[in-house]
Amino acid sequence: MMLVLAESSLELVPPEIWRHPAVLRDAERRGKKPGEILLDRARHHGAMLGLKDAERRGRPDIVHMCMLAFQYSPLNLAGRGSMAVHTIRDVVVRARPDVRPPKNYNNFVGLMEQLLSLGRVPAEGEPLMTAEAKDLRSLLEEAGGRWVVLHERGRRVDPLELGRLLADSVVVVGGFPHGDFKNAWLLEEAEGVYRIGDRPLDAWQVVSKAVTLAEIALGLI
Amino acid sequence: MMLVLAESSLELVPPEIWRHPAVLRDAERRGKKPGEILLDRARHHGAMLGLKDAERRGRPDIVHMCMLAFQYSPLNLAGRGSMAVHTIRDVVVRARPDVRPPKNYNNFVGLMEQLLSLGRVPAEGEPLMTAEAKDLRSLLEEAGGRWVVLHERGRRVDPLELGRLLADSVVVVGGFPHGDFKNAWLLEEAEGVYRIGDRPLDAWQVVSKAVTLAEIALGLI
Repeated sequence: MMLVLAESSLELVPPEIWRHPAVLRDAERRGKKPGEILLDRARHHGAMLGLKDAERRGRPDIVHMCMLAFQYSPLNLAGRGSMAVHTIRDVVVRARPDVRPPKNYNNFVGLMEQLLSLGRVPAEGEPLMTAEAKDLRSLLEEAGGRWVVLHERGRRVDPLELGRLLADSVVVVGGFPHGDFKNAWLLEEAEGVYRIGDRPLDAWQVVSKAVTLAEIALGLI
Repeated sequence: MMLVLAESSLELVPPEIWRHPAVLRDAERRGKKPGEILLDRARHHGAMLGLKDAERRGRPDIVHMCMLAFQYSPLNLAGRGSMAVHTIRDVVVRARPDVRPPKNYNNFVGLMEQLLSLGRVPAEGEPLMTAEAKDLRSLLEEAGGRWVVLHERGRRVDPLELGRLLADSVVVVGGFPHGDFKNAWLLEEAEGVYRIGDRPLDAWQVVSKAVTLAEIALGLI
Protein backbone atom coordinates (compact mmCIF):
# COMPACT_ATOMS: atom_id res chain seq x y z
CA MET A 1 0.00 0.00 0.00
CA MET A 2 1.13 3.49 -0.81
CA LEU A 3 -0.87 5.85 1.37
CA VAL A 4 -1.42 9.40 0.13
CA LEU A 5 -2.85 11.79 2.68
CA ALA A 6 -4.34 14.46 0.40
CA GLU A 7 -4.98 18.19 0.93
CA SER A 8 -3.74 17.81 4.49
CA SER A 9 -4.30 20.54 7.01
CA LEU A 10 -0.59 21.22 7.61
CA GLU A 11 1.16 24.55 6.97
CA LEU A 12 3.22 27.30 8.56
CA VAL A 13 1.31 30.39 9.77
CA PRO A 14 0.55 32.41 6.60
CA PRO A 15 1.71 36.06 6.30
CA GLU A 16 -1.87 37.46 6.51
CA ILE A 17 -1.98 36.73 10.25
CA TRP A 18 1.66 37.13 11.29
CA ARG A 19 0.71 40.29 13.21
CA HIS A 20 -2.27 38.85 15.04
CA PRO A 21 -1.74 38.98 18.85
CA ALA A 22 -2.47 35.24 19.34
CA VAL A 23 0.18 34.36 16.76
CA LEU A 24 2.75 36.86 18.05
CA ARG A 25 2.28 35.61 21.61
CA ASP A 26 2.68 31.97 20.61
CA ALA A 27 5.75 32.67 18.45
CA GLU A 28 7.40 34.74 21.16
CA ARG A 29 6.77 32.14 23.84
CA ARG A 30 8.47 29.54 21.66
CA GLY A 31 11.33 31.80 20.54
CA LYS A 32 10.42 31.62 16.84
CA LYS A 33 9.20 34.01 14.14
CA PRO A 34 5.47 33.94 13.27
CA GLY A 35 6.29 32.44 9.86
CA GLU A 36 8.22 29.59 11.48
CA ILE A 37 5.42 28.09 13.56
CA LEU A 38 2.67 25.67 12.49
CA LEU A 39 -0.83 26.99 12.04
CA ASP A 40 -2.82 25.31 14.82
CA ARG A 41 -6.49 25.96 15.45
CA ALA A 42 -6.10 25.02 19.12
CA ARG A 43 -3.68 27.95 19.55
CA HIS A 44 -4.66 30.40 16.83
CA HIS A 45 -8.42 30.10 16.65
CA GLY A 46 -9.04 33.83 16.96
CA ALA A 47 -6.41 34.66 14.37
CA MET A 48 -7.89 32.17 11.89
CA LEU A 49 -11.37 33.71 11.78
CA GLY A 50 -10.59 35.82 8.73
CA LEU A 51 -8.55 33.21 6.83
CA LYS A 52 -9.80 31.82 3.53
CA ASP A 53 -10.88 28.15 3.81
CA ALA A 54 -10.33 28.43 7.56
CA GLU A 55 -12.45 25.38 8.37
CA ARG A 56 -10.02 23.16 6.45
CA ARG A 57 -6.83 24.56 7.98
CA GLY A 58 -4.79 24.48 11.15
CA ARG A 59 -5.16 20.80 12.11
CA PRO A 60 -1.62 19.34 12.23
CA ASP A 61 -2.96 16.86 14.80
CA ILE A 62 -4.66 15.03 11.92
CA VAL A 63 -1.37 14.57 10.10
CA HIS A 64 0.29 13.55 13.36
CA MET A 65 -2.24 10.82 14.10
CA CYS A 66 -2.17 9.51 10.51
CA MET A 67 1.63 9.39 10.45
CA LEU A 68 1.72 7.52 13.75
CA ALA A 69 -0.96 5.08 12.58
CA PHE A 70 1.00 4.34 9.42
CA GLN A 71 4.67 4.52 10.36
CA TYR A 72 4.37 2.32 13.46
CA SER A 73 2.13 -0.27 11.80
CA PRO A 74 3.20 -3.88 11.15
CA LEU A 75 2.52 -3.11 7.48
CA ASN A 76 5.17 -0.41 7.36
CA LEU A 77 7.56 -2.22 9.70
CA ALA A 78 7.41 -5.22 7.34
CA GLY A 79 8.40 -3.00 4.42
CA ARG A 80 5.02 -3.40 2.70
CA GLY A 81 3.99 0.26 2.63
CA SER A 82 4.99 3.86 2.05
CA MET A 83 3.34 7.16 2.84
CA ALA A 84 3.25 10.67 1.32
CA VAL A 85 1.53 13.69 2.85
CA HIS A 86 0.22 16.20 0.34
CA THR A 87 -0.80 19.48 1.97
CA ILE A 88 -3.44 22.09 1.27
CA ARG A 89 -0.56 24.36 0.13
CA ASP A 90 0.68 21.78 -2.43
CA VAL A 91 3.69 20.65 -0.49
CA VAL A 92 4.52 16.94 -0.41
CA VAL A 93 6.10 15.53 2.74
CA ARG A 94 7.75 12.14 2.61
CA ALA A 95 9.28 10.08 5.39
CA ARG A 96 11.66 7.17 5.04
CA PRO A 97 9.92 3.92 6.03
CA ASP A 98 12.21 3.57 9.04
CA VAL A 99 11.26 7.00 10.43
CA ARG A 100 9.48 6.86 13.79
CA PRO A 101 7.71 10.23 14.16
CA PRO A 102 7.59 11.75 17.68
CA LYS A 103 4.65 10.37 19.61
CA ASN A 104 4.38 13.52 21.66
CA TYR A 105 2.31 16.11 19.80
CA ASN A 106 4.42 19.11 20.78
CA ASN A 107 7.62 17.37 19.67
CA PHE A 108 5.92 16.50 16.36
CA VAL A 109 4.96 20.15 15.87
CA GLY A 110 8.59 21.20 16.40
CA LEU A 111 9.76 18.65 13.84
CA MET A 112 7.21 19.74 11.21
CA GLU A 113 8.18 23.39 11.73
CA GLN A 114 11.79 22.53 11.01
CA LEU A 115 10.79 20.38 8.02
CA LEU A 116 8.54 22.97 6.38
CA SER A 117 11.08 25.75 7.01
CA LEU A 118 14.14 23.85 5.71
CA GLY A 119 12.58 21.38 3.26
CA ARG A 120 14.26 18.52 5.08
CA VAL A 121 15.21 17.07 8.47
CA PRO A 122 17.76 16.77 9.79
CA ALA A 123 19.36 19.93 8.39
CA GLU A 124 22.60 18.06 7.52
CA GLY A 125 23.43 14.55 6.33
CA GLU A 126 21.05 11.90 4.96
CA PRO A 127 17.49 13.30 5.08
CA LEU A 128 14.93 11.34 7.11
CA MET A 129 12.02 13.46 5.91
CA THR A 130 11.67 15.84 2.98
CA ALA A 131 9.18 18.54 1.95
CA GLU A 132 8.94 19.81 -1.63
CA ALA A 133 6.50 21.91 -3.67
CA LYS A 134 4.31 19.50 -5.65
CA ASP A 135 0.62 19.29 -6.48
CA LEU A 136 -1.58 16.24 -5.95
CA ARG A 137 -1.86 15.44 -9.66
CA SER A 138 1.92 15.29 -10.07
CA LEU A 139 2.31 13.14 -6.98
CA LEU A 140 -0.26 10.61 -8.18
CA GLU A 141 1.16 10.55 -11.70
CA GLU A 142 4.61 9.80 -10.31
CA ALA A 143 3.08 7.00 -8.25
CA GLY A 144 1.75 5.33 -11.42
CA GLY A 145 -1.42 7.28 -12.20
CA ARG A 146 -3.82 4.73 -10.67
CA TRP A 147 -5.38 5.12 -7.25
CA VAL A 148 -8.35 4.31 -5.07
CA VAL A 149 -9.98 6.74 -2.64
CA LEU A 150 -11.44 6.05 0.78
CA HIS A 151 -14.34 8.43 1.19
CA GLU A 152 -17.59 8.43 3.14
CA ARG A 153 -19.68 8.45 -0.05
CA GLY A 154 -17.79 5.51 -1.56
CA ARG A 155 -19.04 1.97 -2.01
CA ARG A 156 -19.17 -0.31 1.01
CA VAL A 157 -17.70 -3.71 0.27
CA ASP A 158 -16.69 -6.74 2.31
CA PRO A 159 -13.82 -5.66 4.59
CA LEU A 160 -11.60 -8.60 3.69
CA GLU A 161 -12.07 -7.96 -0.02
CA LEU A 162 -11.29 -4.29 0.60
CA GLY A 163 -8.15 -5.24 2.51
CA ARG A 164 -6.83 -7.33 -0.41
CA LEU A 165 -7.48 -4.46 -2.78
CA LEU A 166 -5.88 -1.81 -0.53
CA ALA A 167 -2.77 -3.91 0.07
CA ASP A 168 -1.73 -3.51 -3.59
CA SER A 169 -2.99 0.03 -4.30
CA VAL A 170 -2.18 3.69 -4.05
CA VAL A 171 -4.75 4.68 -1.41
CA VAL A 172 -5.87 8.30 -1.06
CA VAL A 173 -7.39 9.59 2.19
CA GLY A 174 -8.33 13.23 2.87
CA GLY A 175 -6.08 14.79 5.53
CA PHE A 176 -8.51 17.58 6.50
CA PRO A 177 -11.28 17.86 9.11
CA HIS A 178 -14.41 18.78 7.14
CA GLY A 179 -15.81 19.18 3.66
CA ASP A 180 -14.77 17.59 0.42
CA PHE A 181 -11.69 17.35 -1.78
CA LYS A 182 -10.99 20.58 -3.66
CA ASN A 183 -9.43 18.44 -6.40
CA ALA A 184 -12.77 17.12 -7.74
CA TRP A 185 -11.06 14.98 -10.42
CA LEU A 186 -9.62 12.86 -7.61
CA LEU A 187 -12.89 10.96 -7.14
CA GLU A 188 -13.90 11.05 -10.82
CA GLU A 189 -10.67 9.54 -12.11
CA ALA A 190 -10.14 7.05 -9.28
CA GLU A 191 -10.19 3.32 -10.03
CA GLY A 192 -12.58 2.91 -7.14
CA VAL A 193 -14.08 4.89 -4.27
CA TYR A 194 -14.82 2.93 -1.10
CA ARG A 195 -15.97 3.61 2.41
CA ILE A 196 -15.29 1.81 5.67
CA GLY A 197 -18.46 1.35 7.71
CA ASP A 198 -21.47 3.63 7.51
CA ARG A 199 -20.42 6.54 9.72
CA PRO A 200 -18.10 9.43 8.85
CA LEU A 201 -14.70 8.66 10.36
CA ASP A 202 -11.72 10.83 11.21
CA ALA A 203 -8.86 10.56 8.73
CA TRP A 204 -6.64 8.69 11.15
CA GLN A 205 -9.38 6.16 11.92
CA VAL A 206 -9.66 5.55 8.19
CA VAL A 207 -5.89 5.18 7.86
CA SER A 208 -5.69 2.89 10.84
CA LYS A 209 -8.51 0.64 9.63
CA ALA A 210 -7.23 0.59 6.04
CA VAL A 211 -3.81 -0.48 7.26
CA THR A 212 -5.29 -3.17 9.52
CA LEU A 213 -7.41 -4.58 6.68
CA ALA A 214 -4.33 -4.71 4.43
CA GLU A 215 -2.38 -6.41 7.22
CA ILE A 216 -5.04 -9.11 7.48
CA ALA A 217 -4.86 -9.62 3.71
CA LEU A 218 -1.08 -9.92 3.84
CA GLY A 219 -1.07 -12.23 6.87
CA LEU A 220 0.84 -9.69 8.96
CA ILE A 221 -1.59 -9.82 11.90
CA MET B 1 -16.24 -5.24 24.13
CA MET B 2 -15.33 -3.66 27.40
CA LEU B 3 -11.81 -2.29 27.05
CA VAL B 4 -9.69 -1.97 30.19
CA LEU B 5 -6.50 0.00 29.77
CA ALA B 6 -4.46 -1.32 32.71
CA GLU B 7 -1.67 0.28 34.80
CA SER B 8 -1.83 3.30 32.54
CA SER B 9 0.87 5.92 32.61
CA LEU B 10 -1.42 8.77 33.75
CA GLU B 11 -1.03 10.74 36.99
CA LEU B 12 -0.58 14.20 38.45
CA VAL B 13 2.99 15.25 39.27
CA PRO B 14 3.86 13.45 42.55
CA PRO B 15 4.98 15.46 45.63
CA GLU B 16 8.59 14.17 45.45
CA ILE B 17 9.32 16.40 42.47
CA TRP B 18 7.04 19.40 43.09
CA ARG B 19 10.13 21.53 43.75
CA HIS B 20 12.10 20.49 40.69
CA PRO B 21 12.84 23.51 38.44
CA ALA B 22 11.38 21.85 35.30
CA VAL B 23 8.12 21.19 37.13
CA LEU B 24 7.94 24.63 38.76
CA ARG B 25 8.58 26.32 35.42
CA ASP B 26 5.90 24.30 33.63
CA ALA B 27 3.34 24.85 36.42
CA GLU B 28 4.02 28.59 36.56
CA ARG B 29 3.75 28.97 32.79
CA ARG B 30 0.35 27.31 32.90
CA GLY B 31 -0.89 29.15 36.01
CA LYS B 32 -1.32 25.96 38.07
CA LYS B 33 0.24 24.39 41.16
CA PRO B 34 2.84 21.61 40.61
CA GLY B 35 0.38 19.05 42.03
CA GLU B 36 -2.29 20.09 39.55
CA ILE B 37 -0.41 19.29 36.32
CA LEU B 38 0.01 15.94 34.57
CA LEU B 39 3.33 14.17 34.80
CA ASP B 40 4.67 14.26 31.24
CA ARG B 41 8.02 12.85 30.23
CA ALA B 42 8.23 15.25 27.29
CA ARG B 43 8.18 18.19 29.72
CA HIS B 44 9.58 16.76 32.96
CA HIS B 45 12.24 14.37 31.79
CA GLY B 46 14.95 15.82 34.03
CA ALA B 47 12.68 15.87 37.05
CA MET B 48 11.69 12.23 36.51
CA LEU B 49 15.21 10.79 36.67
CA GLY B 50 14.98 10.00 40.39
CA LEU B 51 11.38 8.73 40.37
CA LYS B 52 10.61 5.11 41.22
CA ASP B 53 9.39 3.13 38.18
CA ALA B 54 10.19 6.18 36.07
CA GLU B 55 10.30 4.24 32.78
CA ARG B 56 6.61 3.35 33.19
CA ARG B 57 5.40 6.84 34.08
CA GLY B 58 4.67 10.21 32.49
CA ARG B 59 3.11 9.08 29.20
CA PRO B 60 -0.41 10.59 29.11
CA ASP B 61 -0.10 10.57 25.31
CA ILE B 62 -0.64 6.78 25.44
CA VAL B 63 -3.95 7.22 27.25
CA HIS B 64 -4.89 10.02 24.85
CA MET B 65 -4.32 7.92 21.75
CA CYS B 66 -6.14 4.90 23.22
CA MET B 67 -9.14 6.99 24.25
CA LEU B 68 -9.36 8.56 20.81
CA ALA B 69 -9.04 5.16 19.11
CA PHE B 70 -11.85 3.76 21.23
CA GLN B 71 -14.29 6.60 21.77
CA TYR B 72 -14.46 7.67 18.11
CA SER B 73 -14.71 4.11 16.77
CA PRO B 74 -17.78 2.74 14.98
CA LEU B 75 -17.86 0.09 17.74
CA ASN B 76 -18.38 2.69 20.45
CA LEU B 77 -20.59 4.92 18.33
CA ALA B 78 -22.86 1.92 17.73
CA GLY B 79 -23.16 1.40 21.49
CA ARG B 80 -21.28 -1.92 21.39
CA GLY B 81 -18.42 -0.99 23.69
CA SER B 82 -17.27 0.70 26.86
CA MET B 83 -13.87 1.71 28.18
CA ALA B 84 -12.21 2.09 31.59
CA VAL B 85 -8.72 3.44 32.22
CA HIS B 86 -6.97 2.02 35.26
CA THR B 87 -3.85 3.96 36.19
CA ILE B 88 -0.51 3.07 37.72
CA ARG B 89 -1.73 4.88 40.86
CA ASP B 90 -4.89 2.72 41.11
CA VAL B 91 -7.32 5.33 39.90
CA VAL B 92 -10.06 4.28 37.48
CA VAL B 93 -11.20 6.79 34.86
CA ARG B 94 -14.47 6.20 33.05
CA ALA B 95 -16.04 8.16 30.23
CA ARG B 96 -19.64 8.04 29.09
CA PRO B 97 -19.88 6.34 25.68
CA ASP B 98 -21.00 9.62 24.12
CA VAL B 99 -17.91 11.50 25.32
CA ARG B 100 -15.69 12.77 22.53
CA PRO B 101 -12.28 13.44 24.11
CA PRO B 102 -10.32 16.47 22.83
CA LYS B 103 -8.32 15.52 19.75
CA ASN B 104 -5.72 18.16 20.54
CA TYR B 105 -3.16 16.77 22.98
CA ASN B 106 -2.78 19.94 25.03
CA ASN B 107 -6.54 20.26 25.44
CA PHE B 108 -6.67 16.62 26.53
CA VAL B 109 -3.97 17.27 29.13
CA GLY B 110 -5.99 20.17 30.55
CA LEU B 111 -9.10 17.98 30.79
CA MET B 112 -7.25 15.13 32.55
CA GLU B 113 -5.74 17.60 35.03
CA GLN B 114 -9.21 18.81 35.92
CA LEU B 115 -10.54 15.24 36.11
CA LEU B 116 -7.77 13.91 38.35
CA SER B 117 -7.94 16.98 40.61
CA LEU B 118 -11.74 17.04 41.00
CA GLY B 119 -12.66 13.38 40.45
CA ARG B 120 -15.09 14.40 37.72
CA VAL B 121 -15.68 16.68 34.74
CA PRO B 122 -17.45 18.94 34.38
CA ALA B 123 -17.26 20.25 37.95
CA GLU B 124 -21.07 20.70 38.13
CA GLY B 125 -24.06 18.85 36.70
CA GLU B 126 -24.16 15.41 35.08
CA PRO B 127 -20.57 14.02 34.98
CA LEU B 128 -19.15 13.13 31.56
CA MET B 129 -16.05 11.52 33.00
CA THR B 130 -15.24 10.29 36.50
CA ALA B 131 -12.05 9.29 38.35
CA GLU B 132 -12.15 7.20 41.54
CA ALA B 133 -9.64 5.26 43.66
CA LYS B 134 -9.89 1.59 42.66
CA ASP B 135 -7.42 -1.20 42.01
CA LEU B 136 -7.35 -3.39 38.90
CA ARG B 137 -8.64 -6.50 40.70
CA SER B 138 -11.74 -4.66 41.95
CA LEU B 139 -12.41 -3.19 38.52
CA LEU B 140 -12.23 -6.59 36.81
CA GLU B 141 -14.36 -8.27 39.50
CA GLU B 142 -17.04 -5.62 39.04
CA ALA B 143 -16.90 -6.25 35.29
CA GLY B 144 -17.73 -9.94 35.83
CA GLY B 145 -14.41 -11.48 36.82
CA ARG B 146 -13.58 -12.87 33.34
CA TRP B 147 -11.21 -11.21 30.93
CA VAL B 148 -8.77 -11.75 28.09
CA VAL B 149 -5.44 -9.96 27.74
CA LEU B 150 -3.75 -8.70 24.58
CA HIS B 151 -0.04 -9.08 25.17
CA GLU B 152 3.00 -9.58 22.96
CA ARG B 153 3.73 -13.01 24.49
CA GLY B 154 0.16 -14.23 23.96
CA ARG B 155 -1.06 -16.78 21.43
CA ARG B 156 -1.43 -15.71 17.82
CA VAL B 157 -4.73 -16.83 16.35
CA ASP B 158 -6.68 -16.12 13.18
CA PRO B 159 -7.60 -12.40 13.24
CA LEU B 160 -11.27 -13.02 12.40
CA GLU B 161 -11.58 -15.58 15.17
CA LEU B 162 -9.87 -13.16 17.54
CA GLY B 163 -12.31 -10.42 16.51
CA ARG B 164 -15.32 -12.58 17.34
CA LEU B 165 -13.85 -13.37 20.74
CA LEU B 166 -12.93 -9.76 21.55
CA ALA B 167 -16.35 -8.44 20.56
CA ASP B 168 -17.94 -10.22 23.54
CA SER B 169 -15.15 -9.96 26.12
CA VAL B 170 -13.58 -7.74 28.74
CA VAL B 171 -10.30 -6.97 26.98
CA VAL B 172 -7.24 -5.83 28.95
CA VAL B 173 -4.42 -3.88 27.27
CA GLY B 174 -1.42 -2.39 29.10
CA GLY B 175 -1.48 1.43 29.09
CA PHE B 176 2.25 1.90 29.70
CA PRO B 177 5.27 2.24 27.41
CA HIS B 178 7.65 -0.54 28.46
CA GLY B 179 7.98 -3.61 30.64
CA ASP B 180 5.35 -5.95 31.93
CA PHE B 181 2.23 -5.83 34.08
CA LYS B 182 3.02 -5.37 37.77
CA ASN B 183 -0.18 -7.30 38.52
CA ALA B 184 1.25 -10.71 37.54
CA TRP B 185 -2.06 -12.49 38.30
CA LEU B 186 -3.58 -10.62 35.37
CA LEU B 187 -2.04 -12.98 32.81
CA GLU B 188 -2.24 -16.10 35.01
CA GLU B 189 -5.97 -15.78 35.71
CA ALA B 190 -7.01 -14.55 32.27
CA GLU B 191 -9.32 -16.70 30.15
CA GLY B 192 -6.92 -16.23 27.29
CA VAL B 193 -3.83 -14.23 26.35
CA TYR B 194 -3.49 -13.28 22.70
CA ARG B 195 -1.23 -11.22 20.53
CA ILE B 196 -1.86 -9.30 17.33
CA GLY B 197 0.87 -9.91 14.78
CA ASP B 198 4.45 -10.82 15.64
CA ARG B 199 5.92 -7.43 16.52
CA PRO B 200 5.58 -5.47 19.75
CA LEU B 201 2.94 -2.78 19.19
CA ASP B 202 2.15 0.45 20.98
CA ALA B 203 -0.89 0.25 23.23
CA TRP B 204 -3.00 2.43 20.97
CA GLN B 205 -2.14 0.30 17.91
CA VAL B 206 -3.32 -2.74 19.87
CA VAL B 207 -6.52 -0.95 20.90
CA SER B 208 -7.15 0.28 17.39
CA LYS B 209 -6.64 -3.15 15.82
CA ALA B 210 -8.65 -4.95 18.51
CA VAL B 211 -11.55 -2.57 17.92
CA THR B 212 -11.31 -3.00 14.15
CA LEU B 213 -11.32 -6.80 14.43
CA ALA B 214 -14.39 -6.65 16.69
CA GLU B 215 -16.08 -4.30 14.22
CA ILE B 216 -15.51 -6.80 11.41
CA ALA B 217 -17.00 -9.56 13.58
CA LEU B 218 -20.05 -7.40 14.35
CA GLY B 219 -20.54 -6.27 10.76
CA LEU B 220 -19.94 -2.63 11.69
CA ILE B 221 -17.33 -2.04 8.99
